[in-house]
Amino acid sequence: MQRTAFGEMTCSIARTLDIAGEPWTPLILRDLFVGIRRFDELQRDLGISRKVLTQRLNHLLDHGIVERRPYTDKPVRYDYLLTDKGWELCDILLAITAWGDRWTAGEHGPPVILHHTTCRHSTHATITCAACNKPLHARDVRVTPGPGASRAN
Amino acid sequence: MQRTAFGEMTCSIARTLDIAGEPWTPLILRDLFVGIRRFDELQRDLGISRKVLTQRLNHLLDHGIVERRPYTDKPVRYDYLLTDKGWELCDILLAITAWGDRWTAGEHGPPVILHHTTCRHSTHATITCAACNKPLHARDVRVTPGPGASRAN
Repeated sequence: MQRTAFGEMTCSIARTLDIAGEPWTPLILRDLFVGIRRFDELQRDLGISRKVLTQRLNHLLDHGIVERRPYTDKPVRYDYLLTDKGWELCDILLAITAWGDRWTAGEHGPPVILHHTTCRHSTHATITCAACNKPLHARDVRVTPGPGASRAN
Repeated sequence: MQRTAFGEMTCSIARTLDIAGEPWTPLILRDLFVGIRRFDELQRDLGISRKVLTQRLNHLLDHGIVERRPYTDKPVRYDYLLTDKGWELCDILLAITAWGDRWTAGEHGPPVILHHTTCRHSTHATITCAACNKPLHARDVRVTPGPGASRAN
């Protein structure tokens, strides 16, 4: 499988996923999140092959993460837009960014600054307990089977 | 590349990463997080090949996500343990779990329940603004270049 040096990109998401995941899909989501909507622009920004980008976008369309709307008829061309489900998935990118900023950014500091348009401050994501609203750390979490548990996995 | 049906596992992390990532590394982290520490146990739990598990663990060791400590000498065998960096990476798994519970769990409900040992409530992760402590949604975030930005990426 082709392997790009995601760890060397000045993007905390890319760096984090170089360690912790398959990077293309989250990076496509990142681009959609920052407003890149067209196939050729995505392809150029990511340096991804057209074949792989088509596969990944179709996968996201199939899973209802992305929808597409034609912006021109002849030839037909699409804008790719995040659905509500896709936007919520992008919230995870904010958490990934915070980790990447903390652990991969290096001496120059974070590649991007996030601004919360609601409170108007620059910010980073924290992962919080829905019950007590304090930070939620994996160290302080115990896991028990839920209603959707099965013996198979 | 071999492809396992992660989307069919009753684990919200697996389901989410079936859509959004390369699943092995986060699933290894998940297993370490719930207390599975030994190579053979990880291999059995994940149904991963020994070769791929070795590669992934070495990658995590190289990146300081995991450390290993011998628990027996003859033959030498190791416990694989999360470092602080690794534990913080697992915090992201909590956010992934919340998304997966919401969007992939289906009619039976979530595969696991998280309990916050600090506040003693069952919970899920929310992604919160470090500045105003309210929910942080990607829709409400504007991104500008940070000190670590480069023109290359």
